Amino acid sequence: MNKISKAVISRLPRYYRYLDELRTQKIERVSSKELSEMMNVTASQIRQDLNNFGGFGQQGYGYNVQYLYDEIGKLLGLDTPHKMVIVGAGNLGQAIANYGNFKNRGFQITALFDKNPNLIGTKTSDAEIMDIECLYDYVKENQVEIVALTLPKEPAREIAEKLVACGIKAFWNFAHTDLKISGDIIVENVHLSESLMKLTYRISEKRNHNEE
Amino acid sequence: MNKISKAVISRLPRYYRYLDELRTQKIERVSSKELSEMMNVTASQIRQDLNNFGGFGQQGYGYNVQYLYDEIGKLLGLDTPHKMVIVGAGNLGQAIANYGNFKNRGFQITALFDKNPNLIGTKTSDAEIMDIECLYDYVKENQVEIVALTLPKEPAREIAEKLVACGIKAFWNFAHTDLKISGDIIVENVHLSESLMKLTYRISEKRNHNEE
Repeated sequence: MNKISKAVISRLPRYYRYLDELRTQKIERVSSKELSEMMNVTASQIRQDLNNFGGFGQQGYGYNVQYLYDEIGKLLGLDTPHKMVIVGAGNLGQAIANYGNFKNRGFQITALFDKNPNLIGTKTSDAEIMDIECLYDYVKENQVEIVALTLPKEPAREIAEKLVACGIKAFWNFAHTDLKISGDIIVENVHLSESLMKLTYRISEKRNHNEE
Repeated sequence: MNKISKAVISRLPRYYRYLDELRTQKIERVSSKELSEMMNVTASQIRQDLNNFGGFGQQGYGYNVQYLYDEIGKLLGLDTPHKMVIVGAGNLGQAIANYGNFKNRGFQITALFDKNPNLIGTKTSDAEIMDIECLYDYVKENQVEIVALTLPKEPAREIAEKLVACGIKAFWNFAHTDLKISGDIIVENVHLSESLMKLTYRISEKRNHNEE
């Protein structure tokens, strides 16, 4: 397979989501034109993006939904299971633990960790909430691959550093900070307040435009 | 002020976050070199980005942290209060309601809405959880500006359409779907599973690279 550009990669999860909807509706084939209308992207963009996979689409036939879904899933690393734990069992951590879609896609959330004694020992969505003191041994003993950080920024950095020392190489970071981690570590950030600021920027831009 | 490019706009919330940290630490001035080291962005990129605001930075003096923070805040629409309600009072909705940073930045989360009778009438972080049946009257009577949608995809689209009919023009959408809304409506999406797929893509890319 040719090297796929970063821009295309960044669009693949969205294709994957639409293909998943089509599968669920038992739709077997889809044309670039139909996808274009569903996704509000030009058909030529879709053809260009999906051509990267080579030979999926056929003129007058369209794309095979299941095949394209599987291939994109493989490329996104969803064909192998991923063990994940969540550090911070507050509302956000529990929201992620309860999000059923992750389980369907091979994510195994085996435990949450918190320092709150009222939470420790309880369960959320089949995963136990454990004492954060046990975190480091747990990730070593259970071959955990991904750690989701859903806790305040102050402890997040320190905990992330300790986890790196325990062999963790991938973080899904919701803490309101950029983790400063040296070495070959993957960090995917979800900064909710930054997303909200993009929204207010667009609101204020529109207001100024209307006033002009 | 000149028209600022979309790329710069998309970086402003991150500048704003770092400037906020500096303010909190009572730091009054910062050079592009210092910001560059903190943010892991080149100093020339920082100068280019911040030059858009005109005359903030002075050679050998650096940027005035508070002034730059305020100006970027204005541009992001954070100098005026924003009334927001949350539809879906599950873990994710409650996580957002409890997120203190939003309050500091002028977001007034006045109510959450849910259909679950066990939640209706309870409070989370000073905001009451109300019956979703009351949502439409509430947004009209209380000049709500932004609606956060933290509920499953099936009801999200229908509810969003009804809210548009009630005059809502801005959505912060966490539902696992793209809202198909016609008209001049602003939608900012947070698709958590897409973010997680970007992470697994990078994991699998690294694994393939190491195997080569």
